Amino acid sequence: MGEKVTVCEVGPRDGLQMAHGIMPTPVKTRWIAAIAAAGVPEIEVGSFVSPRLIPQMADTAEIVRSAVLRPGVLIVALAPNLRGAQDAYAAGAHRISVPVSASFGHSRANLNRLPGEQVAEVARIVAWVRAQPRRMEVEGVVSTAFGCSIDGVVPEAAVLGVASGLAEAGVDMVGLADTVGYGHPAQIRRLVRAVRAEIGDRLDGLHLHDTMGLGIANALAGLDEGVRNFDAALAGLGGCPFAPGASGNIVTEDLVFMLESMGFDTGIDLDRLIAARTILHEGLPAETLHGHVPQAGVPKTFRAAA
Amino acid sequence: MGEKVTVCEVGPRDGLQMAHGIMPTPVKTRWIAAIAAAGVPEIEVGSFVSPRLIPQMADTAEIVRSAVLRPGVLIVALAPNLRGAQDAYAAGAHRISVPVSASFGHSRANLNRLPGEQVAEVARIVAWVRAQPRRMEVEGVVSTAFGCSIDGVVPEAAVLGVASGLAEAGVDMVGLADTVGYGHPAQIRRLVRAVRAEIGDRLDGLHLHDTMGLGIANALAGLDEGVRNFDAALAGLGGCPFAPGASGNIVTEDLVFMLESMGFDTGIDLDRLIAARTILHEGLPAETLHGHVPQAGVPKTFRAAA
Repeated sequence: MGEKVTVCEVGPRDGLQMAHGIMPTPVKTRWIAAIAAAGVPEIEVGSFVSPRLIPQMADTAEIVRSAVLRPGVLIVALAPNLRGAQDAYAAGAHRISVPVSASFGHSRANLNRLPGEQVAEVARIVAWVRAQPRRMEVEGVVSTAFGCSIDGVVPEAAVLGVASGLAEAGVDMVGLADTVGYGHPAQIRRLVRAVRAEIGDRLDGLHLHDTMGLGIANALAGLDEGVRNFDAALAGLGGCPFAPGASGNIVTEDLVFMLESMGFDTGIDLDRLIAARTILHEGLPAETLHGHVPQAGVPKTFRAAA
Repeated sequence: MGEKVTVCEVGPRDGLQMAHGIMPTPVKTRWIAAIAAAGVPEIEVGSFVSPRLIPQMADTAEIVRSAVLRPGVLIVALAPNLRGAQDAYAAGAHRISVPVSASFGHSRANLNRLPGEQVAEVARIVAWVRAQPRRMEVEGVVSTAFGCSIDGVVPEAAVLGVASGLAEAGVDMVGLADTVGYGHPAQIRRLVRAVRAEIGDRLDGLHLHDTMGLGIANALAGLDEGVRNFDAALAGLGGCPFAPGASGNIVTEDLVFMLESMGFDTGIDLDRLIAARTILHEGLPAETLHGHVPQAGVPKTFRAAA
């Protein structure tokens, strides 16, 4: 068995929020079940935001409540504030993911708060969560860590400042998000090293978008730096409604193909993962499904040439 | 200025041979001129093969004759045999690229020869070329070096055998081709190291296809191993008519974006390169043009965040 790499499927959250149309709740439930049945160890199933802003996420509480009943899969929900964290806790989420933008433009557009104010909100969230009887993990995610389509270049110091703030706020883990997909491999390597120098192994994962076609190469760069946790979306869906120009997440199928080919152990059955696209298409027939491996088919050399 | 990386545009050869329709010669000439004007240092403009087999390449002699008049760009033509090499020489090509498959199935389908027979043909080609008054470079390319859609896994020993044979035949340089796009980054690294251990710096370049979505990550892996010469095709066209399942080459626009973002110097003007897609579309209106960077647009952070 190879070294373990954890893939977190974020399609039901990041993928659906930009989709054409709204996936019906029963289809979403079956889709999440199919993803879990393929062996995906972590799924971000929704977002506790105002259904006025993102109507695709209106059923998140119901989705979380049913998803957590499924054994062997860690259920994540995005919570942008204390209210969302409380709702996620009530629904039984195993982990919440709380975004903090490193750029002022995206922070204002996405959260209507300054980065520093949002770090303070994360501290309030952590304090509240730790006071509850049930354990729920809190992940702080540094959004726009590799560039911003509103502000342009995001200074490394801003990323380090937010990451340190999150660590001091007491989050269980910190992720770096290339929200708009402007990052490149050398930047990934440099920033992962710099953040780790600040907060050590609290730096946990990378959330990458494929806007410029470098998403999988950026994952490889993170992998080389020892990152062992990656977000990805089935069929490469995704984007941020408040980050103009952002396109989909890296394709889970292609990422898993790369990782397993390289000898890493994801625990995921690639054929069953690809089969879950059928339900996605059923629930969102107008959506273009991306991904090279599903298109070409898993080659006969898969896992034989590692 | 960063370290130099050479990108060889193979769209006019590899890209067109699988295209729907035949690009008219005057459009092809303008397209190659636009690629050269964008600063691309090497262009593989055609293939001296039977026009019965690949009618898209019937005008290769004419294309080479006009392309070599253009200053500052190295003109490459594929030549599968001595006859093709002689035609390339007569047309004035600066370099020929001669394929030798590492797999028996592809060798038979593509060249109707055993790999060893083709290595012997390369030796004849080198001997003939060296006896001519004008210098013409000979590159030997190991096809299906990372897997074959006919034979499946290609043993590393077969690749090393062909690479050594090419070096002994006296070629100027050896390239490794992932003809069907089955390779993964760990395999690229391992094989580049192994081949370099056999033939040293005679190993020059990588020719990658993006069948499984790992093409750019594979280029990064090669880059990490010190490879500084990459083939790519504008808009990701390409494929091998005798390698079922192969899809397009890595996208030149995305590759150049990655290289320049990382601080390498390609000498290529990305905006002018993207503009050359217009002529490609004009000449092949039925062809789907790929590429993330052209789709998303060059972001304002380009070259600012290196």
